[in-house]
Amino acid sequence: MSVITIPKPATQARAATAATMKAFVYRGPGKKGLEDRPKPEITAPTDAIVKIVKTTICGTDLHILKGDVPTCQPGRILGHEGVGIVDQVGSAVTAFKPGDRVLISCVSACGKCDYCRKQMYSHCTTGGWILGNTIDGTQAEFVRTPYADTSLYPIPEGSDEEALVMLSDILPTGFECGVLNGKIQPGSVVAIVGSGPIGLAALLTAQFFSPAEIIMIDLDDNRLAVAKRFGATASINSTDGKAVAKLKAMTGNRGVDTAIEAVGIPATFELCQDIIAPGGTIANIGVHGKKVDLHLESLWDRNISITTRLVDTATIPMLFKTVGAHKIDPKLLITHRFKLDQILDAYETFGNAAKTKALKVIIEA
Amino acid sequence: MSVITIPKPATQARAATAATMKAFVYRGPGKKGLEDRPKPEITAPTDAIVKIVKTTICGTDLHILKGDVPTCQPGRILGHEGVGIVDQVGSAVTAFKPGDRVLISCVSACGKCDYCRKQMYSHCTTGGWILGNTIDGTQAEFVRTPYADTSLYPIPEGSDEEALVMLSDILPTGFECGVLNGKIQPGSVVAIVGSGPIGLAALLTAQFFSPAEIIMIDLDDNRLAVAKRFGATASINSTDGKAVAKLKAMTGNRGVDTAIEAVGIPATFELCQDIIAPGGTIANIGVHGKKVDLHLESLWDRNISITTRLVDTATIPMLFKTVGAHKIDPKLLITHRFKLDQILDAYETFGNAAKTKALKVIIEA
Amino acid sequence: MSVITIPKPATQARAATAATMKAFVYRGPGKKGLEDRPKPEITAPTDAIVKIVKTTICGTDLHILKGDVPTCQPGRILGHEGVGIVDQVGSAVTAFKPGDRVLISCVSACGKCDYCRKQMYSHCTTGGWILGNTIDGTQAEFVRTPYADTSLYPIPEGSDEEALVMLSDILPTGFECGVLNGKIQPGSVVAIVGSGPIGLAALLTAQFFSPAEIIMIDLDDNRLAVAKRFGATASINSTDGKAVAKLKAMTGNRGVDTAIEAVGIPATFELCQDIIAPGGTIANIGVHGKKVDLHLESLWDRNISITTRLVDTATIPMLFKTVGAHKIDPKLLITHRFKLDQILDAYETFGNAAKTKALKVIIEA
Amino acid sequence: MSVITIPKPATQARAATAATMKAFVYRGPGKKGLEDRPKPEITAPTDAIVKIVKTTICGTDLHILKGDVPTCQPGRILGHEGVGIVDQVGSAVTAFKPGDRVLISCVSACGKCDYCRKQMYSHCTTGGWILGNTIDGTQAEFVRTPYADTSLYPIPEGSDEEALVMLSDILPTGFECGVLNGKIQPGSVVAIVGSGPIGLAALLTAQFFSPAEIIMIDLDDNRLAVAKRFGATASINSTDGKAVAKLKAMTGNRGVDTAIEAVGIPATFELCQDIIAPGGTIANIGVHGKKVDLHLESLWDRNISITTRLVDTATIPMLFKTVGAHKIDPKLLITHRFKLDQILDAYETFGNAAKTKALKVIIEA
Repeated sequence: MSVITIPKPATQARAATAATMKAFVYRGPGKKGLEDRPKPEITAPTDAIVKIVKTTICGTDLHILKGDVPTCQPGRILGHEGVGIVDQVGSAVTAFKPGDRVLISCVSACGKCDYCRKQMYSHCTTGGWILGNTIDGTQAEFVRTPYADTSLYPIPEGSDEEALVMLSDILPTGFECGVLNGKIQPGSVVAIVGSGPIGLAALLTAQFFSPAEIIMIDLDDNRLAVAKRFGATASINSTDGKAVAKLKAMTGNRGVDTAIEAVGIPATFELCQDIIAPGGTIANIGVHGKKVDLHLESLWDRNISITTRLVDTATIPMLFKTVGAHKIDPKLLITHRFKLDQILDAYETFGNAAKTKALKVIIEA
Repeated sequence: MSVITIPKPATQARAATAATMKAFVYRGPGKKGLEDRPKPEITAPTDAIVKIVKTTICGTDLHILKGDVPTCQPGRILGHEGVGIVDQVGSAVTAFKPGDRVLISCVSACGKCDYCRKQMYSHCTTGGWILGNTIDGTQAEFVRTPYADTSLYPIPEGSDEEALVMLSDILPTGFECGVLNGKIQPGSVVAIVGSGPIGLAALLTAQFFSPAEIIMIDLDDNRLAVAKRFGATASINSTDGKAVAKLKAMTGNRGVDTAIEAVGIPATFELCQDIIAPGGTIANIGVHGKKVDLHLESLWDRNISITTRLVDTATIPMLFKTVGAHKIDPKLLITHRFKLDQILDAYETFGNAAKTKALKVIIEA
Repeated sequence: MSVITIPKPATQARAATAATMKAFVYRGPGKKGLEDRPKPEITAPTDAIVKIVKTTICGTDLHILKGDVPTCQPGRILGHEGVGIVDQVGSAVTAFKPGDRVLISCVSACGKCDYCRKQMYSHCTTGGWILGNTIDGTQAEFVRTPYADTSLYPIPEGSDEEALVMLSDILPTGFECGVLNGKIQPGSVVAIVGSGPIGLAALLTAQFFSPAEIIMIDLDDNRLAVAKRFGATASINSTDGKAVAKLKAMTGNRGVDTAIEAVGIPATFELCQDIIAPGGTIANIGVHGKKVDLHLESLWDRNISITTRLVDTATIPMLFKTVGAHKIDPKLLITHRFKLDQILDAYETFGNAAKTKALKVIIEA
Repeated sequence: MSVITIPKPATQARAATAATMKAFVYRGPGKKGLEDRPKPEITAPTDAIVKIVKTTICGTDLHILKGDVPTCQPGRILGHEGVGIVDQVGSAVTAFKPGDRVLISCVSACGKCDYCRKQMYSHCTTGGWILGNTIDGTQAEFVRTPYADTSLYPIPEGSDEEALVMLSDILPTGFECGVLNGKIQPGSVVAIVGSGPIGLAALLTAQFFSPAEIIMIDLDDNRLAVAKRFGATASINSTDGKAVAKLKAMTGNRGVDTAIEAVGIPATFELCQDIIAPGGTIANIGVHGKKVDLHLESLWDRNISITTRLVDTATIPMLFKTVGAHKIDPKLLITHRFKLDQILDAYETFGNAAKTKALKVIIEA
């Protein structure tokens, strides 16, 4: 990526003021704060600067704050989701102009490398998930978005922008990693292990394919109740360790066609192995921190598939169409709303979801 | 499967003689022998009795002899591969008649259950791999084959029957579990871990799809030399523990599109995880006796698939066509030939492959 | 198919009475009637005799009555749809027994031939669409169904059998030939040309995949109103010859991803060519009596697909699951109900659909 | 596409000389010539100027010269194939720099629009087939290539550049439009109608998938003999009007799984309809000038697909790998070689292929 050096203007009092913004900054494990930061500037001809309208917090942001994501260093502005208004574009940007309302993909895609060519944007050789990770992110008044033409999406006139924030990451994640990878088909029997925001995003988008049954498994009765409202046909509280037996009873001892892992720990991944029917697919969405046991001694002859995936957000245009056609209501996932200067409260609420019953929180910039 | 009881004829001296045959019998862990056994009889209207012309020994037979396959009980006639001549058919058999030359699939398929409908014959609810396992098999002069219409295949006039013995199990196993599950495409970079008969069957059938590279990995230089003759573009002897580094060097540090596991132990399955490129597929063929470590902490975001499969033999008709068209030469796999009454020698030869360099042995009945 | 000759019992007065039934018979072009016919008998070990509970009339039956289907000769009992109760089974039938409630597929599948193996039952070398065509059909008190194990489907306890009659032909036809062949996906823009029963069946089953838009095109405002009630997002009355312009206006001049032809005449097939977007699919369901113009001079570089298909009914098990899960309500298609002895009225009603607004009529045997 | 106006330098004698080049120009139907033209200049930041090393002539160029391609106006420099050396790049080009050796795709792809995102580059909303059509082409010393990053491909060190000229258009056309669209699989029975350069390109690339039979059909015995040398398993000279009967005899009266139309006239497209087996695919490559008859009255129930496609060249990277791995030898297609100033002779030779036996001609710039 060729970088153009843009000289700072010498003395412009008013501009200097305008060029400062509020931003939420990771300061090292357990430390964070709202800071005044310089407004970002175009550094490559394919960049855009976007004024944030609404953003949100992802479970991954909580991991960063704990110090679990080594690629993200102290001093980083967090956030990789949001909608906004294009403020400036680089000289090679042709699809957008200042004033355009846009959705920001959590994944930056150069559009040229081998991976981008096959829409595996997550592995773009110079992009991928970099926003709020290796470059500054969206929990601020402005953000610089690399590869704007292939990483931003135009928002149709009259859209509900709050709903669209769910298309930056969580809905494509549930859909691509869980539903598409899980090959859900009309009449399928599906289990989703984990009824948090990601599991619920999989639940909502699974219904695009009219499965016969979606069985939600979690430890929290409140989350399972939410899942039933969102379209789950059955739920299992796995606290008593009897989830496998209960699921087998529900499925005539056959198991499920698709098991979606939406937690990210060994126990839930093992549960998926115990309930998958011959010929079925285990679609992993969870972010795992350690290895898991794979019971090939019982699975080697079961004709199953196991898939992993970092979201590519290649389905954002398709999701726009389904939202526009009212096939899905992303706002179901939004439980709380904050202003940017309340973002510490927003993190507090989102981080204590068991108590606050938070799913996704909207932050207005 | 409804079983019709056919009363034994009371006293028929000549028939009694005709009704005895030689058969190779598993007598419990470590024990085996050639025995005189009654010739099998039709027990269901969908059965056929097939006079064996040629059969072979599978690695699975060695596992049974060690006592590793609990479904196979002492007293069982082994063998699940072979070609023969139809001797008798049940009243509901319409596709075959006595005198027809046939290939016997290692998998018996009722053709009616949900699994058979989608050609997942391996999981037929009343069939699957039962020959030489839960019912008597093909290492004998005659065998009873259930569901004859959907488990036998006609041998075209003028075929080389010895070559076709490889279509009962080993070639469809390499092709279905390794090549098709591994999604090999023109230009692919493939690694096959394990250069035994199964790995070599995958190697031969992988070439149907014109991959750019097939890198064979094994501990045995002789087997690797065989692989080079069979079409491998490169080989790695992994004895020194540096297979991953060598493979990465060969692939511009990228890894492979498809890694085929053809051994069945934790170390080789872990090797596959270490060499798979983003977006790739690990296709397991190996029969595993214990669990393996799955490193989801590094694979969760790599967009990979892992597949398992017991061979369905659904591709036997296609393999017949490719053999007929000389796209593959199955006889490459045959190294030794024996008569049925030398079957103990055949087992000795096949069981000491490192020394004898045996791949597949043909047993003439 | 081997045929077993079953000798008729010599003199059994009571049986003779029981062995007569009412049946609707095609007597040659324009001629038809309800007749007393002998109750059918098992002629092959794979046959079943089914006592009809409910059947229906298909558009194809009207074609036969006009003399348009040369394979169907005078004297034939018509009908290829229905639910019933198994009365007798041949000696090789293992999946059903007398008393079982079953759905009859319009297509008879041997389950053994190359076509049946790949679930292309429509081209079964000894079956296919033969019921009410080359052998006697279901518009009678009893029917002989060949290949019972692979051509009948068990009806789950507590099902609404009237709804299930729609699974014999019309729903799998709309789904397989229109929706699956048309590759409808979430967010797709779909046009269905023809809002008769078949087009409506495609409309109902298209919704399994959550397309963004389904635009229904027909000449009849009543049928278009029905389509809107059944889930169409827009409708176009093409009487004024401006359907193409209207559709282009609705789709930003782009055309549709999938165009389903559900009429069977040159004009409607040409309309599909005019509205298909680059990369799209034209899925033909219509039964065509003459050739059509294919405008390759404008389509050769448009990256489109055109598909044809005779229904295979391979999706009947899947459709059972979606009906059971309330993802579709087949009874929406049923407008009228008759007793078997009123079948001439039923034909009158169904044959004058423009006036009677009939979609599907149920006939109770 | 934003266009940057670059002012011409006022008086630079030496530069003026350097800025002139030889180019082959279409002057209107039947008229053509080699002219001195100004060397092209960068007009958009995504452009590159490429110095042509080798180019070739396409059948489409002959169509243009006849006046059959209305989008191509008199004064246009023809040519859409070639390899060359990057001479200059626009400010937004990041994948190439002056001195890089490159292959030029016949299709220009912005990499950003909906069609480019799904690799349907042929329908790029601002690109597609424009080179040598609506903008000046490659039959010259230099060419301006729009969207260089996504329309040029790096040539690996040590490649045979002459062979690679076949990857600009003809090999991807045969492969994408014929082989991939035709769904050729191991064991398939394939017919290719038309044994000209495009049909032969389909023949060469079809072998990537190991079909059992490839039957070549043409009117010219020489071209059929070439086809046999290139791997066809059988050939039919259709001059006597008995091609259908001959093919049916060769295929056990079944027909073919894939029929590739590589001519572009009604008669050959009808032939494909006559020989396609149930469940088969007709893949059209031919450029058609008029409508054809589609016999839906006999095809509506045959479960076939018909596909059309303008080459996307999305498989160029894959083809590079197969050439590198010696899975295909593109030079087989090259029969004649000329210098750029002999291009009129080259056209003469290529345009009289029946007499000269020309397939592809190489023009060295």
